[in-house]
Amino acid sequence: MAKELDFLTKRSVDYSKWYNELVVKADLAEQSDVRGCMVIKPYGYAIWEKMQRILDDMFKATGVQNAYFPLLIPKSFLSKEAEHVEGFAKECAVVTHYRLKTNETHDGVVVDPSAKLEEELIIRPTSETIIWNTYKNWIHSYRDLPLLCNQWCNVMRWEMRTRLFLRTSEFLWQEGHTAHATREEAEERAQQMLKVYANFAEKYMAVPVVQGVKSETERFAGALDTYTIEAMMQDGKALQSGTSHFLGQNFGKAFDVQFLNKENKPEYAWATSWGVSTRLMGALIMTHSDDNGLVLPPALAPIQVVIIPIGGKPEQMEAVNAAVAPIVEQLQQMGISVKYDNADNKRPGFKFADYELKGVPVRLVLGARDLENGTIEVMRRDTLEKESRQIEGIAEYVKQLLDEIQENIFQKAVKFRDEHIYECDNYEDFKERVKDGGFFLCHWDGTAETEAKIKEDTQATIRCVPFNVEQTPGVDMVSGKPAKCRVLIARSY
Amino acid sequence: MAKELDFLTKRSVDYSKWYNELVVKADLAEQSDVRGCMVIKPYGYAIWEKMQRILDDMFKATGVQNAYFPLLIPKSFLSKEAEHVEGFAKECAVVTHYRLKTNETHDGVVVDPSAKLEEELIIRPTSETIIWNTYKNWIHSYRDLPLLCNQWCNVMRWEMRTRLFLRTSEFLWQEGHTAHATREEAEERAQQMLKVYANFAEKYMAVPVVQGVKSETERFAGALDTYTIEAMMQDGKALQSGTSHFLGQNFGKAFDVQFLNKENKPEYAWATSWGVSTRLMGALIMTHSDDNGLVLPPALAPIQVVIIPIGGKPEQMEAVNAAVAPIVEQLQQMGISVKYDNADNKRPGFKFADYELKGVPVRLVLGARDLENGTIEVMRRDTLEKESRQIEGIAEYVKQLLDEIQENIFQKAVKFRDEHIYECDNYEDFKERVKDGGFFLCHWDGTAETEAKIKEDTQATIRCVPFNVEQTPGVDMVSGKPAKCRVLIARSY
Repeated sequence: MAKELDFLTKRSVDYSKWYNELVVKADLAEQSDVRGCMVIKPYGYAIWEKMQRILDDMFKATGVQNAYFPLLIPKSFLSKEAEHVEGFAKECAVVTHYRLKTNETHDGVVVDPSAKLEEELIIRPTSETIIWNTYKNWIHSYRDLPLLCNQWCNVMRWEMRTRLFLRTSEFLWQEGHTAHATREEAEERAQQMLKVYANFAEKYMAVPVVQGVKSETERFAGALDTYTIEAMMQDGKALQSGTSHFLGQNFGKAFDVQFLNKENKPEYAWATSWGVSTRLMGALIMTHSDDNGLVLPPALAPIQVVIIPIGGKPEQMEAVNAAVAPIVEQLQQMGISVKYDNADNKRPGFKFADYELKGVPVRLVLGARDLENGTIEVMRRDTLEKESRQIEGIAEYVKQLLDEIQENIFQKAVKFRDEHIYECDNYEDFKERVKDGGFFLCHWDGTAETEAKIKEDTQATIRCVPFNVEQTPGVDMVSGKPAKCRVLIARSY
Repeated sequence: MAKELDFLTKRSVDYSKWYNELVVKADLAEQSDVRGCMVIKPYGYAIWEKMQRILDDMFKATGVQNAYFPLLIPKSFLSKEAEHVEGFAKECAVVTHYRLKTNETHDGVVVDPSAKLEEELIIRPTSETIIWNTYKNWIHSYRDLPLLCNQWCNVMRWEMRTRLFLRTSEFLWQEGHTAHATREEAEERAQQMLKVYANFAEKYMAVPVVQGVKSETERFAGALDTYTIEAMMQDGKALQSGTSHFLGQNFGKAFDVQFLNKENKPEYAWATSWGVSTRLMGALIMTHSDDNGLVLPPALAPIQVVIIPIGGKPEQMEAVNAAVAPIVEQLQQMGISVKYDNADNKRPGFKFADYELKGVPVRLVLGARDLENGTIEVMRRDTLEKESRQIEGIAEYVKQLLDEIQENIFQKAVKFRDEHIYECDNYEDFKERVKDGGFFLCHWDGTAETEAKIKEDTQATIRCVPFNVEQTPGVDMVSGKPAKCRVLIARSY
């Protein structure tokens, strides 16, 4: 079987190539003929749908409602918040016309020059501006607050260098936008949503994350604080997996969203926004998968269990089919998604490799000889361990095994992450070691200058000031000045 | 209470105005500041989400998988299918540039003229072209077929005159795109999906529909046959609520999607596409609602039951709260979504009017006097009938009542529809009567000329050749020529 999987580049040979090949070969996504835009294939989309459903329920449990705002944003809206325009009104898709017409040779279409828009429209790179322009009409009194909206949608940022799921010009995401009567409530909401993201990443994706707050340089354009979850990939690089922003009154002021407080005095509303995107797919893939293909956490696997018969004579196949039917039924009754693949136009060996590539957590194999013995072969994708079990009670065993796999891949990722977090206070040492990846906890003087120097020297950036690190006094490893805090530094995607 | 509802224009006074006001006042949607694009507000979106979830399950039960294809389509793709380009490459949003830059006065942004795209990109008005361009790489053998993909997404058609939900420049929809090895299989799939739409409309939306096939003039651009479901609104106008297209090999040929059949010979793939959109919201609203506001079918109501206490002294309110708690719990356990509105900053009369406006199917009211008698007031939104019931067993009663309301509003709509379908073979008569709305079953000679004349004279169009009408011989009411079939003619949205 190893032979059949030779086509996937090994991680140790070229991690980046391994990732690119895996995404395509496991049928998750592919490049489209539109520059920088991907096609998410059914198998990849099925994982994303599972993520969406779970996150959506988690959002709603905190009182959030879904809504939908326009795809297109008038150009002038982008300029209303001074910092926001710097960050977002740059690499954008611009709609300038609203009509095509048949060309002179009648074999194609051209843009109709008479259908030029008075004001250009931008495909949303994020929706703070259009949403706060709408909130202006929804918010009048403290009774209208808090306003907690989310939308699941597509957004577009014109990226020069794209990679499937990690950085694409168009991507799918959710963006939550909340409005509050007080600063405290908005800050709490921003942190609450970060915790939702962290819980989701750890509990469902089995991806451990470091929670923290961004440095000023790395903040969202227009935010007073950006909170982040940072995950470590198997090459030691960081992947920013979700962010939640406390926006202060910046958008309230820019779009004149005022409300009458309990004392009947006008105040500007306080804002948060928070989002995760199809980038999470990249985090999922790169955290767990191996040289045989995807390793999916059972909680997000579209197919949790695959059952493959080992063919024999037709009457043997009938007996196998008959033995498998009750197992399928029992698993389905337990809410487990199971596929019985008895297609006869593919050899078992091909099926084995294919479901390994697709990351199906548990494989059951049943042949004529197993039937005689009342046994069934169980393979778990995370460790590739095989064992023979009694058919009797196999459904309960599989259910328990799925939980065990979920926990195991999480613990494995935690262990890897923890083994690659280093305290480091020597810059020469840092510069050498950061090349091999890992998260570095370093003292920082809090200036943008040292931050820029680190980035220039090493390509590494301050990922965050982590919440869970005890802050002790020290000196900045670059400037030698007294440190403001210990920060997490890493190269990143 | 009637007084408090005066703000909604009566249907009999101005049906169109009633609709526009209702959509906004019931918090379903509103116009945005982007021409022709709407904001779907949380209450409206909650209904759309319920529709999506149910339809998605119905699609998946027929083997369909979800996927996602790019928002932007290269201009040249639109010209590849000759008829398609005529129908769709017209009123489109055109992306010509990919960058903005700060203006000279540093107080705004302008389009960067150096960032002009070599080929313009069109925001998808529908995705046949980009999807079949992708299918080319997915389909090689008959073993790859059928390919059954759907996507939930936004699309854009630059509309000059827009109305919330009914016709907006951007709208949300699903578009299914299937590829098949044979003509028969594709035709069956197109009809199968129409039946899914019809079942959904009748069973969940409680909207009766006429199923049929479009005339050539009214076909989707690029289709060999367009199947449709047509619903009748309360003003007697038709609303096309969903369409399913048999596309033949048009897109297979245009994008060179060939597969090797079982005899190892190349053939072009056969196609279907089918979609429903946020337009369904318009059908839902206009079929059932009345002068007091929305009437929602229980199957799609975000809040199925609202419970309102009649306040008294604080100790009485406590007793009411205590009596309501087990009712809420029982209803929730039955899977019924219930809201207990004991907010003390609004009077009961205001709440009554508001939940009527929002179409909540069942209202329960409990006051101190009820408590003494062990009774509770039940109001059903569809008939506005009130009755006093024992609290004991109220949850079971409400559950049954919700089913009854669902059935009642459907039957009411069926009755209305059937009373306004007329056989008509006299054109003078037709021209007079069609002004008042209704569906007219008329003999038609099958020519585009008479079709055009009817439209010009009366604004009415051939909605479809209905499936369930016995076709008898006759003469065309306009031309006097022998009829090809009896068709359904109506004015429409």
